[in-house]
Amino acid sequence: MSSDNRLIYLPLGGAGEIGMNAYVYGYGPAGRERLILVDLGVTFPNMDGTPGVDLIFADIAWLEQRRDRLEAIFITHAHEDHVGALGHLWRRLKAPVYARAFTANHAARKMDEQGNDPEEVRVTGPWPHQVEAGPFKVGFLPVSHSIPESSSMVIDSPAGRIVHTGDFKLDVTPVLGEPFDRALWAEVAAPGVKVLTCDSTNVFSPQPGRSEATVGPAITQLVQRAEAMVVATTFASNIARVKTLAEAGHAAGRSVCLLGRAMRRMIEAGVESGILTDFPTTVPPEEAAEIPREHLMLIVTGSQGERRAASGQLSRGRYMGLELKAGDLFLFSSKTIPGNEREVLRVVNALSEIGVDVVDDAADLYHVSGHANRPDLSEVHRLINPEVVVPMHGEHRHLREHVKLAAENALPAVLAPNGSMVELSHTPPRVVDVIEAGRTYLDGAVQIGALDGVVRDRMRMALNGHAMVTLILDEEGEPLGEPWVELMGLPETGRSNAALAEVLEADLDQFMRRAEDKTLADDDKLEDALRRIVRQGAQNEIGKKPEVTVVISRLSA
Amino acid sequence: MSSDNRLIYLPLGGAGEIGMNAYVYGYGPAGRERLILVDLGVTFPNMDGTPGVDLIFADIAWLEQRRDRLEAIFITHAHEDHVGALGHLWRRLKAPVYARAFTANHAARKMDEQGNDPEEVRVTGPWPHQVEAGPFKVGFLPVSHSIPESSSMVIDSPAGRIVHTGDFKLDVTPVLGEPFDRALWAEVAAPGVKVLTCDSTNVFSPQPGRSEATVGPAITQLVQRAEAMVVATTFASNIARVKTLAEAGHAAGRSVCLLGRAMRRMIEAGVESGILTDFPTTVPPEEAAEIPREHLMLIVTGSQGERRAASGQLSRGRYMGLELKAGDLFLFSSKTIPGNEREVLRVVNALSEIGVDVVDDAADLYHVSGHANRPDLSEVHRLINPEVVVPMHGEHRHLREHVKLAAENALPAVLAPNGSMVELSHTPPRVVDVIEAGRTYLDGAVQIGALDGVVRDRMRMALNGHAMVTLILDEEGEPLGEPWVELMGLPETGRSNAALAEVLEADLDQFMRRAEDKTLADDDKLEDALRRIVRQGAQNEIGKKPEVTVVISRLSA
Repeated sequence: MSSDNRLIYLPLGGAGEIGMNAYVYGYGPAGRERLILVDLGVTFPNMDGTPGVDLIFADIAWLEQRRDRLEAIFITHAHEDHVGALGHLWRRLKAPVYARAFTANHAARKMDEQGNDPEEVRVTGPWPHQVEAGPFKVGFLPVSHSIPESSSMVIDSPAGRIVHTGDFKLDVTPVLGEPFDRALWAEVAAPGVKVLTCDSTNVFSPQPGRSEATVGPAITQLVQRAEAMVVATTFASNIARVKTLAEAGHAAGRSVCLLGRAMRRMIEAGVESGILTDFPTTVPPEEAAEIPREHLMLIVTGSQGERRAASGQLSRGRYMGLELKAGDLFLFSSKTIPGNEREVLRVVNALSEIGVDVVDDAADLYHVSGHANRPDLSEVHRLINPEVVVPMHGEHRHLREHVKLAAENALPAVLAPNGSMVELSHTPPRVVDVIEAGRTYLDGAVQIGALDGVVRDRMRMALNGHAMVTLILDEEGEPLGEPWVELMGLPETGRSNAALAEVLEADLDQFMRRAEDKTLADDDKLEDALRRIVRQGAQNEIGKKPEVTVVISRLSA
Repeated sequence: MSSDNRLIYLPLGGAGEIGMNAYVYGYGPAGRERLILVDLGVTFPNMDGTPGVDLIFADIAWLEQRRDRLEAIFITHAHEDHVGALGHLWRRLKAPVYARAFTANHAARKMDEQGNDPEEVRVTGPWPHQVEAGPFKVGFLPVSHSIPESSSMVIDSPAGRIVHTGDFKLDVTPVLGEPFDRALWAEVAAPGVKVLTCDSTNVFSPQPGRSEATVGPAITQLVQRAEAMVVATTFASNIARVKTLAEAGHAAGRSVCLLGRAMRRMIEAGVESGILTDFPTTVPPEEAAEIPREHLMLIVTGSQGERRAASGQLSRGRYMGLELKAGDLFLFSSKTIPGNEREVLRVVNALSEIGVDVVDDAADLYHVSGHANRPDLSEVHRLINPEVVVPMHGEHRHLREHVKLAAENALPAVLAPNGSMVELSHTPPRVVDVIEAGRTYLDGAVQIGALDGVVRDRMRMALNGHAMVTLILDEEGEPLGEPWVELMGLPETGRSNAALAEVLEADLDQFMRRAEDKTLADDDKLEDALRRIVRQGAQNEIGKKPEVTVVISRLSA
């Protein structure tokens, strides 16, 4: 390798959260590296911090400005937090996209939905096949996870080999798709690996991970013992689990019906891409409605309590002609992602009100994680034996813990949160630059910056309510009538028991009568004064200061 | 007992959530029962459903309308979800309040803070002392929980004895306060108990509960091994735990400093009421700042990740002259209450960024619950052996599971969510009425109904943004100038790349030019039309429909 060239790593997303994966690698002279991007995912908004937002992407401004240097985009697997932003951001990057068949099926649909050419997604075979991308040769190394055809990236550069795990677990009996192939991984490791960029999601889970195959018997037993209708939910993309659930239903002599668009689409994609060859027969909802409930099993979307998913709909009443009743069984074959507890419990309590028995994974019987636990991570550290570990896909606490784990395994590691550009070809690797690694919100049809203030204003209105003041001034700058106050999200009356709007209008009117001409002549001063009066008046009446919008209309002669 | 009289139970809060406890009992002729109230607590708002709200109370309208029949209010213990609404709601009820000394200390302060006479709170001794309240005799039976002087209510009526557990656990070594006294409970049960109204919080926890005394050794060991500063957080009201933490600090030769108003106040109340006699010496923050960090331990508020509590402040930087550094240890001697995960993890990740090692209760070493687990509930079922169990203090799923547990113990049980009036004196008990059991929000200084629409409007603004349209019409009803649009919480530009406000103004102007006189003359029609245009125009530009406020000003001649 020429001493002018360097190998860099720059996470734009995923190294600071679980989700929103977007990792840049580069090779070449400093500032002129040729680049590749691994994954382009989303994270999901919530009412706490991102009300009204539809999706959250990594801010790709840095990469967009350098897109002439971007050779290719690689997608490790079809989860939304790895591929969900592709359709929305591709036109800003315009590089060819590589993925294996099942993943490519999803990626192409996402491109198409957002008006991009799905042909930009190229289907790629697994390792040892390699894609040439500038100075890089990139292979898709099969690995087990919770969605078919997950792959680790084997990224060969003139500075050495990188293994970028993507999401993974060590499952030799994954029910569907390729088992973890230790021999193949050893073969990849054999020539020596410079960098292991490694999933950190489950670094805090102390036990070895369990295989997908372990949940089948428990689920089958549960379904067999059920006396009325059985409804099970899981992550739509976990096709292996959906298959296990369906097989449990069949084994119990039940007809199986899939509810929820995302789940049906995943199963279709599985069939189309040739991965899913022996999925049990299902019945459509209209047919299911005619089947006695003790002979029926529904497999539904909404494991995270999403209001509009099938589970949420069923918890509130009839859906697609189907209805839950007392004595039915509802199985969460899933875990609740931190932050979704309220939504999930809302569904559970609604089911309880109907009299439905809810079974979740509290007893560790009906769900296994798709990520490598702490001992599994150590096993991969040993197997790959890299020069350095770069923890990725985790909140800061996960990355930091993974650095500690690497130290336990006598491996150096670099803590590189989003925006840290690491020079991997330096010994030891060092952070050479820190770029602004923000977030982009998809808000309706518009992409807005997280710091644009739009969401901040929404949260302020939600917390404080909104008062609108309108004032008309005539041609001479004299008030025409009295200021008018409209309120939204504020109590109608306060301490004085008079209408709040009227109290505020009286305050404003009193001010206007005494205001000096130079105040009236200056829109900014007048606006400030009116805002202050409304905020103080509201504080007196209702004990809180609302957001205030002032509209001053000056009539022209 | 006269056949005209009946014994009733009516939960206004707490039977549908964990929190907001408020339970009515009554005895007398139907519709003329004399009433008592057990507890008057709060629950806490969140951004998901109650943005901007300060506190949430049970809707006490039913009781307020019958306050001439209300004999007394009893407070079981000093947790906010049992006493927090007293100061705010007492003036609507005006009945004497009874509590034991420590609880009364808090209750009186809450009364005082809201301008009520603290003397209305009467300090009551423990069982066998009884308070006469109309047809009832009510005793405070000591029980262990996670705050001193917790009591179950022994409520004797002409129709029989009720044991209302309040929050409790079976702890014979509670570190502080009265241990669970099995013999005393057996004595109370001996004459026969008609109703056991019973805490359901931990009905899903399958293992027997652990004593408060079990956490001391593990915490002491952890603190002794720490090399730099130790910071520990727990629930401020868990004085036993605060004491255990402080003793662990002392045992390790550290100075101990309490940070956070709520915690200092609790310790003071403990000392004032004579419960806390041997709390280790502490140092004030200004002194702590001078102590070498390896000789210092902070015990701080904010176990739930509250932004403004000491833990949140310390996670963001210097607080009270104290600052965390890499290598410090932060202990969560607490559990995360469901729904608070995001806030707690925000603090954990901020600590991780500083380089602080965070220890939580994942290993079940540093925290125990204050509530009776499933086997403990069964033990109380057997000990009290009531005619009927009434599960309380739980979400619907807890209440329902507790009914099942009672059945396992061969006891009948009644599922009575908030608003269900149960005739306990009927065999079997039956729901005789269902009243509207809503919630009241404290919003700033104002109490508003949950269904008043105020919070709904706030959430709509947060989700959709807010557009304000102002239009001036002259004396003849003709538009004076063009409609004006102000936006809040909306992107500045959309698909056309022109300013959104200007695009909407152009749409409105176009409409105004074509509008018929009869539309212009009718404020409602005009407002509807303008709103529709703004919503549709925004949908076209930015893909979402904002909330719209239209202000039409008509100049008078």
